This record gives sequence, structure tokens and C-alpha cells, in this order.
Amino acid sequence: MRIGVINGPNLNLLGKRDPDVYGVQSLEEVIQEMKKSFSQAEILDFQSNIEGELIQTLQDWDVNCDGIILNAGGYTHTSVALRDAIAAIKTPVIEIHLSNVQAREEFRHQSLIAGVCKGVISGFGPRSYHLAMNYFLDQV
Amino acid sequence: MRIGVINGPNLNLLGKRDPDVYGVQSLEEVIQEMKKSFSQAEILDFQSNIEGELIQTLQDWDVNCDGIILNAGGYTHTSVALRDAIAAIKTPVIEIHLSNVQAREEFRHQSLIAGVCKGVISGFGPRSYHLAMNYFLDQV
Amino acid sequence: MRIGVINGPNLNLLGKRDPDVYGVQSLEEVIQEMKKSFSQAEILDFQSNIEGELIQTLQDWDVNCDGIILNAGGYTHTSVALRDAIAAIKTPVIEIHLSNVQAREEFRHQSLIAGVCKGVISGFGPRSYHLAMNYFLDQV
Amino acid sequence: MRIGVINGPNLNLLGKRDPDVYGVQSLEEVIQEMKKSFSQAEILDFQSNIEGELIQTLQDWDVNCDGIILNAGGYTHTSVALRDAIAAIKTPVIEIHLSNVQAREEFRHQSLIAGVCKGVISGFGPRSYHLAMNYFLDQV
Amino acid sequence: MRIGVINGPNLNLLGKRDPDVYGVQSLEEVIQEMKKSFSQAEILDFQSNIEGELIQTLQDWDVNCDGIILNAGGYTHTSVALRDAIAAIKTPVIEIHLSNVQAREEFRHQSLIAGVCKGVISGFGPRSYHLAMNYFLDQV
Amino acid sequence: MRIGVINGPNLNLLGKRDPDVYGVQSLEEVIQEMKKSFSQAEILDFQSNIEGELIQTLQDWDVNCDGIILNAGGYTHTSVALRDAIAAIKTPVIEIHLSNVQAREEFRHQSLIAGVCKGVISGFGPRSYHLAMNYFLDQV
Amino acid sequence: MRIGVINGPNLNLLGKRDPDVYGVQSLEEVIQEMKKSFSQAEILDFQSNIEGELIQTLQDWDVNCDGIILNAGGYTHTSVALRDAIAAIKTPVIEIHLSNVQAREEFRHQSLIAGVCKGVISGFGPRSYHLAMNYFLDQV
Amino acid sequence: MRIGVINGPNLNLLGKRDPDVYGVQSLEEVIQEMKKSFSQAEILDFQSNIEGELIQTLQDWDVNCDGIILNAGGYTHTSVALRDAIAAIKTPVIEIHLSNVQAREEFRHQSLIAGVCKGVISGFGPRSYHLAMNYFLDQV
Amino acid sequence: MRIGVINGPNLNLLGKRDPDVYGVQSLEEVIQEMKKSFSQAEILDFQSNIEGELIQTLQDWDVNCDGIILNAGGYTHTSVALRDAIAAIKTPVIEIHLSNVQAREEFRHQSLIAGVCKGVISGFGPRSYHLAMNYFLDQV
Amino acid sequence: MRIGVINGPNLNLLGKRDPDVYGVQSLEEVIQEMKKSFSQAEILDFQSNIEGELIQTLQDWDVNCDGIILNAGGYTHTSVALRDAIAAIKTPVIEIHLSNVQAREEFRHQSLIAGVCKGVISGFGPRSYHLAMNYFLDQV
Amino acid sequence: MRIGVINGPNLNLLGKRDPDVYGVQSLEEVIQEMKKSFSQAEILDFQSNIEGELIQTLQDWDVNCDGIILNAGGYTHTSVALRDAIAAIKTPVIEIHLSNVQAREEFRHQSLIAGVCKGVISGFGPRSYHLAMNYFLDQV
Amino acid sequence: MRIGVINGPNLNLLGKRDPDVYGVQSLEEVIQEMKKSFSQAEILDFQSNIEGELIQTLQDWDVNCDGIILNAGGYTHTSVALRDAIAAIKTPVIEIHLSNVQAREEFRHQSLIAGVCKGVISGFGPRSYHLAMNYFLDQV
Repeated sequence: MRIGVINGPNLNLLGKRDPDVYGVQSLEEVIQEMKKSFSQAEILDFQSNIEGELIQTLQDWDVNCDGIILNAGGYTHTSVALRDAIAAIKTPVIEIHLSNVQAREEFRHQSLIAGVCKGVISGFGPRSYHLAMNYFLDQV
Repeated sequence: MRIGVINGPNLNLLGKRDPDVYGVQSLEEVIQEMKKSFSQAEILDFQSNIEGELIQTLQDWDVNCDGIILNAGGYTHTSVALRDAIAAIKTPVIEIHLSNVQAREEFRHQSLIAGVCKGVISGFGPRSYHLAMNYFLDQV
Repeated sequence: MRIGVINGPNLNLLGKRDPDVYGVQSLEEVIQEMKKSFSQAEILDFQSNIEGELIQTLQDWDVNCDGIILNAGGYTHTSVALRDAIAAIKTPVIEIHLSNVQAREEFRHQSLIAGVCKGVISGFGPRSYHLAMNYFLDQV
Repeated sequence: MRIGVINGPNLNLLGKRDPDVYGVQSLEEVIQEMKKSFSQAEILDFQSNIEGELIQTLQDWDVNCDGIILNAGGYTHTSVALRDAIAAIKTPVIEIHLSNVQAREEFRHQSLIAGVCKGVISGFGPRSYHLAMNYFLDQV
Repeated sequence: MRIGVINGPNLNLLGKRDPDVYGVQSLEEVIQEMKKSFSQAEILDFQSNIEGELIQTLQDWDVNCDGIILNAGGYTHTSVALRDAIAAIKTPVIEIHLSNVQAREEFRHQSLIAGVCKGVISGFGPRSYHLAMNYFLDQV
Repeated sequence: MRIGVINGPNLNLLGKRDPDVYGVQSLEEVIQEMKKSFSQAEILDFQSNIEGELIQTLQDWDVNCDGIILNAGGYTHTSVALRDAIAAIKTPVIEIHLSNVQAREEFRHQSLIAGVCKGVISGFGPRSYHLAMNYFLDQV
Repeated sequence: MRIGVINGPNLNLLGKRDPDVYGVQSLEEVIQEMKKSFSQAEILDFQSNIEGELIQTLQDWDVNCDGIILNAGGYTHTSVALRDAIAAIKTPVIEIHLSNVQAREEFRHQSLIAGVCKGVISGFGPRSYHLAMNYFLDQV
Repeated sequence: MRIGVINGPNLNLLGKRDPDVYGVQSLEEVIQEMKKSFSQAEILDFQSNIEGELIQTLQDWDVNCDGIILNAGGYTHTSVALRDAIAAIKTPVIEIHLSNVQAREEFRHQSLIAGVCKGVISGFGPRSYHLAMNYFLDQV
Repeated sequence: MRIGVINGPNLNLLGKRDPDVYGVQSLEEVIQEMKKSFSQAEILDFQSNIEGELIQTLQDWDVNCDGIILNAGGYTHTSVALRDAIAAIKTPVIEIHLSNVQAREEFRHQSLIAGVCKGVISGFGPRSYHLAMNYFLDQV
Repeated sequence: MRIGVINGPNLNLLGKRDPDVYGVQSLEEVIQEMKKSFSQAEILDFQSNIEGELIQTLQDWDVNCDGIILNAGGYTHTSVALRDAIAAIKTPVIEIHLSNVQAREEFRHQSLIAGVCKGVISGFGPRSYHLAMNYFLDQV
Repeated sequence: MRIGVINGPNLNLLGKRDPDVYGVQSLEEVIQEMKKSFSQAEILDFQSNIEGELIQTLQDWDVNCDGIILNAGGYTHTSVALRDAIAAIKTPVIEIHLSNVQAREEFRHQSLIAGVCKGVISGFGPRSYHLAMNYFLDQV
Repeated sequence: MRIGVINGPNLNLLGKRDPDVYGVQSLEEVIQEMKKSFSQAEILDFQSNIEGELIQTLQDWDVNCDGIILNAGGYTHTSVALRDAIAAIKTPVIEIHLSNVQAREEFRHQSLIAGVCKGVISGFGPRSYHLAMNYFLDQV
């Protein structure tokens, strides 16, 4: 089983940005921990601040992954193009967030991509990634 | 560790209602499966179609549970009173949904309770309950 | 043929509340008159001010009735949970109102339940119940 | 007793348009059946695709009918002028629809004319006309 | 000087409809009075309940009138087509209303045609027509 | 003189919930203090988390009380049914709140019930109840 | 007959401000011309840029004038207080505008005061004042 | 192959109205040019300012045309009835506009009919008609 | 203890304006009655129709009063500047209204100042002032 | 004559994504077919999933192309930056879509770029590109 | 060169009000510092809490100043009259704010006056005034 | 002191695009002039049409600059991701615009990034950059 983990804008700052909210682990550490915890699966990971590169990676991984975990950051709320990419591919995608987006600004309450994802997991910090992994691994 | 599972309106129909969407398991079977899968925890469960009884149970379980899993059904989108109950208690509450509510009618896209919950898990069928259990059990 | 008649909040005040608008008949008298006028059918009736009890009754009567006449009162405009109950059961439900809700306050112009009902009849006083009965009885 | 039946735009296509939704009866057949079922009343009928001709007919029939059954089709949702005509005449008007308009597109959920009608009956196919006749004939 | 007076839907009911609001004069009497009061001008008059006929008359009178007084009734609030006709012709058009539309329902507060008229006069009963005549006659 | 005091959802947590905002007195203590301060009146009190029971109590006390003080908690902002109950009874009802609801979340700024109450008092903690008592007792 | 003419903010700039739109006459010249044209009436005039002084003048002139012509300028669209003053006095008030406000920015399309005025005249330059005078003088 | 060309309100003014925007050709000339350019097809044409006559023509031509080109003018943005007519017939309809409606007033940005048309072509002056012809003729 | 009472636009008409709604007492009489009823406190009073003078008085009285009772009339719903003044001073301010503003026009349902006041009392006629006095005097 | 064809996000999936909606041709095949059908023109083509690269290409081609055909995909509805690029260049741009975007989700009904394009063609599958070519080639 | 500095409501409290946000300097000190820093220009200053006096000063200074710096405080968001005054005069006006209004309540995000100003400077405390001076002095 | 200047989409067209609005200087010339005028500071500059590259540069410069001047062009109004980047870094960012965005289309009136910037300067052409430099240099 191969799972893709795609992180969007500003997630490369993890560990440095607002540690009270986002924790002290860097993105690399989060990924390493996932690889250790879920060693039975192959984990691909990709981060970009560029909307179009997230789209490209979703397309590229479609034939190569059994599931994709997507933290689209700020693009979650504004990107029809990202939504179209998720809808166009066959691999199931789970939308995740570190913080509880519903507890933040009004403009974060709407997700343009959730409607074409398998499901949504938000608010559990790095554990959000783990819960998505749990889902994909148990499913098979 | 003791976890409370609260189910709101129409979830007593599980297994009978729209099996394509909600699966063929009854609510009782879902709860039984949770108890079997997470035998290290004590699981309390409660279902009611009455908004005020859900509020009452949240209040009653506050001192007795380490975490509460809440599927508030249709009240998710309309109940300020339920939000107030969650905000008033100290036990962390996870909002879950069987279906991906963001893929359904517009009026299901807003959650009045998510902002005061620990986090949200939606779209994974009965697995949504399991993922919430995963979170609570790993956390300790 | 068995028809269920469910009345929601404040309809127990019928005859006492605003007689110019709602008439002088009590709810009991309305029900009695229906039973007399449609003696070929068995008529079940239930009234509650509690949203969850209306939901429960819709669920309970699903297997027992050929049709349900529902005057949901104020819950008509605010209850997603009631909508879900109607959608979940197989018995056809007719939404009725004594007054012409479209001629009243703005917030009464929207019905959250009409979209999952068979149809809507409003504005004919106690005759609204009779017209719904006409529909169910002629249909067979 | 004389009852006027006014049908608006596209109802002349009845029987040809979307038979699953609107049934296989032509408008003429629906009217004939009404005349047969309610032979104690005189039934006038008029259909036009032109908004102003519906208004004209409402005005013309004011002094000649005891009640008017109006299926205003698409003009239901857009015509202030039609509303004004209904409000200006003394004969009670019942708004009817074949389909359950609340179960269709958002822009069909608002009726500009309901607020000045006696009441609304929608969702019962050609039976909607019959229920309106029931009301007028019993009333006398 | 030749002035056209165009009256829209339901204004043919003047004198019969809601005399408290609209007065007891018929439309014919209003026009006669105008002709008497402003005998120095030639007054053309036209009434129709059909939106397209109002448009047609605006087009036809463009080359023949020095000014047009338009009471578009309910079409005032809903007709882009009427707006386009007024914008397309060269003769100045004054929008008038018998009643003070801003003191009535919310949907009457917006005029789709006012923005392309010379000006607006509303609330003065039949005097609204006279004031518009005053404007046109003094202007030359 | 007999005054009814009705408290809605989560007010049974008074003293335990967010003491900075709501104070340290329990609901029982608040009621006791009222009884002591206004010993010239008989004070009935009722608390429920169930919307329909609040409605029922309003109906039951209509003939028995000279005034009703209602803190409807979260139902203030969402309940058309509660509004209908207040409008249906003859006893004057005062809407009160412990906190200043206008200083809190946007969805608390709208009250569905205020329009049918005698008046509103909000923001004075337990003193809000006392001020309402002042009003009723002076009035006679 | 005594008529009051009240001009609001920036109308003291008349003749200097945007002559293409507002003409070259100063406010004083407009008033002088009115006095000459309508010498049978006594004309009081007042201009202020201060909202509260417009309110004060409406109140003061209530017992002294048979009619008031009010050009409230920018306050037309924002002042509930001005609306209340007009509603509180008995003298009929006509809202006038030099320009056609409906042909300008969106925020000028709404009038907070029109609903409590006798009527509205807008778009005729200084002639708007004359038409309002016509109305008051003919009325007696 | 037979193609119907239906033109709505004010298009009879083509060539006379705002030549900068709409060009100097009359509607007749536009139609003649189409007939010459697409001589392999039979072209029917109809213009009316009356909404209901456009609906009628759509219905009449349904069995007689292989495609319909519709410039509904101002009714594009306001007519549910026209939408229903297009949805009810089987012949594919192309919505066209001479001007780029998205570059004009806000209320022209919404089309009530586009959703039930085959497609939309706007902004190309009389060439919009030609492009629609291109589509229909190539398609066969 | 010194309490300031500030009354905004049109409250100087009290007793003359709409006596059914506002009572027959003049503002002066209301103030006198307050002074008599609460003789243990010094009462300052100020009325102005000018928004900026209300702001000035709030600022001036900040250091001199223990509490301020503010009936801002129509400015309640439109004045950010007044809100800023209340927020800027340290003396607690109570917003009061004679009428129940929630039972009146939609634009009176929003208060721009309530969020920065201590609390709100509305709907009790001149008694609203007394209740606010009760609060301030008991508090010390 | 040189025409640029710019395709935005997810159009590289053409032929693979949802063939019922978008057809079985790959983007490359669509472009090849265009080149064959319009051999008299030079056709440049570019696809990117990155918003900024679409902007860059519009800028680069400004001096080199006589016309640009732009299918901006999901960015059509969200990109002010793309709108600015189109407005900044002199080459006319035609907005095209394969599907009829008005027949899809609400958020696709608004185009941020249409207002600064020459025109819009949508709903004709790969034929949309051909019709745009028709326009540019005939125009010279 | 002569520059006018106009300060609106509550800015006379500078130094006393919320020093964390607005700093400890009084308005007088801010003005003095400006005069010292920009001694090459003559600086006029005016403060008022009264909207109409701000309007009056804008009008008066039009012929006397080369530029005006306006901090309109709360009137920024609500005053059409102030907007009209700025638009009516010829002297360029710069809108400034001490705080970053976009980081505060929703109702402060809209400026009714910015659209007719030369530009906007906000968020720099007393430095906002200096930056505006920089602009005017360099410009000559 | 080191200041970063980041320019977003289409600003590379400066001098070529709409010279009346944006001036005749190229971006390079604007930057050169800044370097000359503020030689005491080191100025870094970066331009990209790609949203993600702007985000990347904000992140990269965080540790290296004392202040950042950001003209985000069209992304100002649509990018939550850009907002998040500004909020995540510690260096203060000033939002600037060449044109007065509040005087342009409605969709440019909202800034998604202003709320997390130090302040906003807009409308002064290339001088906007200079004023931001003034702020940063004086501040130290």
C-alpha cells in the first residue's frame, strides 16, 4: 500500500510558526514519525507553496497511490482548481487540517474541496495525519 | 479511560435508513464493534432524538468521561444550545459524521458546534467513530 | 387504510390561541371531525411540543401508516433533524399549515421540510387537514 | 358555483413535457376530468404563456367566479404584476403546482404570489387541481 | 408638444382597486382630467397588462413624443427588458407611481428602470401624473 | 402577584460554567435570592434543557402567572416555536440574559423571541432577573 | 400657506459643485426663484450640514408649516434619526433630490426616509423643488 | 437542416439603438446575411418583445427545427418561464448575446436560461449568430 | 452617587410624539420623576439631536459620573462614532429604549452600540430609565 | 495570423477525466485537430496548472499574437490576477469552456475574467475552441 | 504650502483612550510634533465630534489649502455626507487612520470615503499623519 | 537596515500597462529610484506572477529583512495563503497599492491580507513605495 501526503502553503514553516497552535515538530519530523508509525505502508510526501504544483502532484500520484492525504492550507478555502483536480482523479483524498478551522476566522469555515474528498479530519495537530493513515490502512 | 458516545436524531435508524449512504449496520452493532475493537476503554453510549436530552447527557458525562464522541445529526447545523453545552463542559468533544456533510445540501455545510469541539471527523461511515476512539486512546 | 396526523408545537392551543387566525375549534375537535368525515380510514393522532418526539413518532409510524399528515408548526422553518426523519422513512408525508405561512413573517417563508415531503397544503384552516386526507384516500 | 382555472406558461405542454414528473395527461384531459369529477360546478378554463393575459383573465373573472385556481408556472417566482392582480381582485385565488416546487431549484422556493392567495397546494400532480376544487365546493 | 402616458399592469383597475390607496377615479377619468388641465399639449395614452406591449409602445412613440410618463406598475421592480427599451429610445421618460412605493413591501423599494429615466415622482396619487406634465411643459 | 421564572438550556450549570462570565452563584441560589428579595410575590421556577418543555411551561403558566421572566439561553436565537408560544399566551414575558449577548458571537445578536416579548433586559448577570422582577412588581 | 424648504449637507455648495450635474445656480438663487414663482405662499428656508440641526428644524417647523420640502443629501441614505423626526411630526414632508439618485452609486438607491414621507421627487435639478411646491399649492 | 433564430425584446431596434455597441446593421440585415452565409440550411426567424410569444415560438418550433439560436435580451436575466420552455423542448438551444453581458451591469451577469441551454456565445456582435450557426451546421 | 442620563434625537418630543407608543409624559416629566424616585443619587440630564453632542457629553461626563443611561434613539443603529465614544470612556453605560425595538422595523434590530455597553434594557417605556437606575444604585 | 491557445489547470487531463463530460480526445489531439482545421493560422499552445504561468504567458504573447483563446479552468472563478493580466494586454482574449459552466455548481456561474475578455463561448466541448478560431480568422 | 489636518469623533481623547492602541501622545502633542517636523509648511488643524462640522471645515478649507489630511474616525464607515463633501471640493484629501482598521471589527473594513480620496494610509499610529505630510510636501 | 520589496502579478508590466493609471516608469526604474532615495538602507527586490513564489519569498526574507513592502496585486483580494504567510513571519509587512483600490471595482474593496499587515498605503503611485520606506527608516 502506498499513501501520498501533500502539504500546501506555509506548512514548510511547521515547528517555527506559532508553536502554541501548530506544535514544535517540523514538517520533516511529522513525516518521519508517520513513516515510523506506519511502516507497513510506503509514504510519499510533497510540499509546495504553489497551488499549481499541488494540482500537478495530485494528478501525478493518481495512478501511483492508494490514498492521498491533503493539507491544502489556505488554498482549502479559495481554490476551485484544486477541487477540480481532486474530482478528476480516482484515488481517494482525505482533507486534513492541523488546527480546528471552524474555530478560526469566518473565511476558514468554508472548504471548496471537502465536497469532492472522501472525508475531512481537522483539529488534531499532527495526529490528524495519523488518523487519516489509520483510515487508509484499515480499509484494505 | 472512559469514552462517551452520543448519537443524535435519526441515528437510531442506522442500518434501516438509506443503506447505500449509511451502511447496513445498526447503531447497536456499531457500538458493539467499537466496544470489541477498543476493549481497553470503557464505552458509554446514548442516543436520543431530543436536543435537550443530548445537552443533558453532555452535562452529566462531563465529570465521568475522558472524552466524548458526538454525532449530533441534524442538530449540528441548527443548535446554539448544543454549542453552549459543549463549551460549558471540560471534557473534550469530537464532532463526527458518517457521511461527508460538505458533499450534501448547502445547509449542512455550516456546523454551529465545530468551533467549540476539539476537532471534526466526517465522511468515513462507522469508521468515523473508530478514528475518534483512536485519537482519545493514543492521547493518554 | 391508516393515516397518521402529527401536530407540532403550540397546536395544542388550537381554539384558544388567536381565534381570528386559527378558528375556534380545539385540536381535539378538529381530529374528531376528521374521524367522522373520513370514517373509512383509521386515523392516528399525536401532538407534542418537543421536536424529538415528533421525530420519534414519524419513525414509529413508518411501518404502520399509509400516509402521514404533518403540521410541524414553528419547527417547519428551523429543523434539519425533522427533515432527516421524513427523508428516512418510506411513508409519504404531507406538510400542512392552518394559516398561509407565505403571508406572514419573512422567516416563515422558508420550509426546511417541504423538499422531502410529498407536497404542501397551507392556508385553509382545519380544511388543510381534510384536503390532505382527500389526497391519501383517493390515491389508493 | 363557478370556478375559474388559469394555467400559465408551458402548462400547454402537459403530457408531452417530462412525463415522469408531470404525468401523461394533457392539460385538456386534466380539465375534462375536473369537469367530470366536479359536475356540480361550472368550470371555466384558460391557458396562456403571456404574463399579461393571465393578469387580464384574473381581472375579467373577478366578477364572474366564486373562486380561481391558478397555476402560474414560472411566473410564480418572478411576477410582482401577477401578485398585484391577485391582490386587486375580490375572488379568492388558490396557488397550485403539479410538482413539489420546494424540492426543485433554489429559485423556485420563493413565491411572489402566495402571500396574497387564499392558500397553496403543491406536489400532487393533477390531483392538486382536484384538492383546490374540494376546498371551493365544500366551502359553500 | 406631444406627451405620451403609458400605464402598466393593473392600472386599468383604477377606481375599482383599493380606493383608499388609489382613489376613486378611473384611469379614463385621470387621463381626461390631464387632458383638460394641460390642454396646450397633445396627450397620447396607452394601457396594457403585457410587458412586451409597454416595450413596443415606448419604441413606437420614440419619434412621436417629446416626453413619456410611465407608470410601469409591478414591472417597475422586475423588468430588465423595460429598462432596455427606455435606455434605447431618445425621448425622456419619467417614472411615476400613485402610491409611495418606498412605504410598501421590501421588493417594491428597488426600481430596475429608474436609473435610465429622467427622474422619478411617486406617492402623489393622480397628482403624480400632473407633476410630470408640469415638468415637461415648463421645460420647453 | 405570581411571577414565573423559566430558564432554558445550560442554565442549570450556573455557578459551574465559566464563573468569570456567569458568576459563582448556582441557579438555585439565584432563585432563592429572588424569593428573599421579592417576598411580596410568589415565584414559580422551572428549568429545562428541552425546547418543548419550555414551550409547555409557558402554556401551562399562562392562566396562572401575572408575568413570566424567560432566559431562553441558546434557543433565543433559533426557536420559532418558542416565539409562537410567547405570542400565543396572554401573560407578558420579559426576555432576559445574564451576559450582554450583543457583545458575543454574531449569531447571538439576533433574537427570534424579542419581537413578541414585553421587553428585553440583558447583561446584568443575576441582576437581570431582579430588574425584571422590579418591572412586574411596580407595574401593578 | 407656509412651506418650509430644508436642505442638508453640501447643498450650500450648489452652483460651485460639479455644475454639469447640479447646475450653475447657487442655493440662494434657487430659493429666490422659488419665492418669485410661488409668491402666493410664504417660503421658509434652512440649510445645514449637521444632521441634528435638520432634525431640530423639522421639529420646530411642525406647527408652523403646511408642508415641508426636504433635500436631505447624503443623510437620505444613512439616517434613522431623520426618519424618526419625519415620522414624529404631522406636517407632510416631500423628499426631493436634484440628481436621479437611482442612476448613481448603489448605496444611493436606498432611502431610509422615503417610507415616512408623503412622496418622492428626484432627478429634475432645481425643478424638483418647484414640482414639490406645485403639489403643496394645488392641494389646498 | 432547419435552424430557428429567436430574438427577444428591443432587438427589433438593432441598427438604431446605440450603434457603437450594437453596430449599424438592422435585425433584418443580420438575418439576411445569415441566410446568405449559411445557404445550406433553412433559417426561420422570429422577433417579439413579448415574453410569452418567445415561449410559444420555442414550443412551436420544437418539432420543426434541428437547433434554435436564442437572443432573449433582457428576459435572459429574469425569466423562469423561458427557462422552463427551453428545458421542456428537445431541440438544442444556444443562448447568444451581441454584447459581452459580463462587462455590463451586475444584474446582467446572471442568466436564468443558460443552465438549460446547450451553450452560450456572447460578445461578438452579429458574429455571435454566425458562430452558433457554425456549431449547428458542423455538428451534423 | 452621580448618574448621567443622555437622550438622543427626537426624545425631546416625548409626550407629543405618538402617545400610544411613547406615553404622555414629556421628557422633562420623566426626568423629574426619576429625580424624585431616586433622590439618593444626583441625576444629570442632557438631550440633543446632534450625534456629536452626545459623543461630547459622554466624554465630558466620564470623570464625573458613576454610571450613564443612554437612549441614543435612531443613532443606536447607525453610529460607529457613538460606539467608539462609549468604548473610550471608563464609566459603564446602559443602553435603553422606551419601545421594544426588536418588535419594530428590521433596521432597528441591530444595535451598533450594545456590544460596548454594560447591558441593554428596552421596551418598558419610561420604566426603562428606572430599571437602569435600579441597577446602578443597587450595585454600589 | 497567429493565435495563442492557453489552457489552465486540469486541462492536461483531457481525455482521461470524466470522458462523458469532456470527451475522449486528449488536449494534444484537440490542439492537433485545431492546427489541421485552421492551417491558415499559426497556432501557439500552452498549458499549465500554475496561475502565475498563465499570467506570464498572456503577457509574453501580447506582442506576438493576434488573438488568444483562454480556457482558464477553475481559475476563471477565483482569479483577480488573471483578470488584471487580460486587462493589461492589448491582444483580444476569448474565454472558453468545454462544459456549460452555468449548468454546474453555483460557484461556477460567476466569471471574474469575462468582463475584460472580448467574449465568452462555453458548452460546446472541443468545438468551443473551433468557434473561437472561427471568430478570429473571419475577423481579419 | 498650507496643509489642513481634520480630526473626527473621539480623536480629542488621544493619549487618554486605550494608550496601548493609540499611544500616549495627546492630539495637541501630535499636531505640535507635525508642525515642528514639517516647519516648511503651514499646518491648520481642526477637531470636532460633529459630522456636519467636519463637512463644513472641508468646504471652508477648499480654497485655502493645498492638501487635507482627514482622520474621520467612526464616520469613515457610515457617512455618505462626508463622502459628498470630499468629492465636491478640489483640494486632494488623504484618508488616514492611527490603527489598522482592517485588523478590527468587520464594520470597520468598509470605508465610504476612501473612493473619493487621493489615497489611504492606515495603521502607523501618529506616523500616519507624518506619511501623509511627506506625500503632500514632496509632491510640489 | 535591510528592506525587502515584493511585487506580485502584473507589476512587471509597470510603465507599459495603462500609463494614465500606473505612470510611465518601469518597475525597474521605480526600484532604482527607491535605492537612490533611500541609500542608507539595503533594498532587496523580487517580482513574481506566481502566488506561491510570493509566499516563498516572504518566508525566506523573514530572518533577513527588517521590514517588507508588499504590493500583492490581484492576490490581495483572493489569497488566504498569502495572509497566512504574512501572519507566520515576524518581520512587519506593509501592504501597498499604486492605485486607490477603493475607487475601483467592488471586488477590490476587500483585502484578505491587510488584517495581518502592519498597515496599508494605497493610491499614491510609485510614491506609495517611498512612504512605506519612510516609515521603516524613521522607525529605527
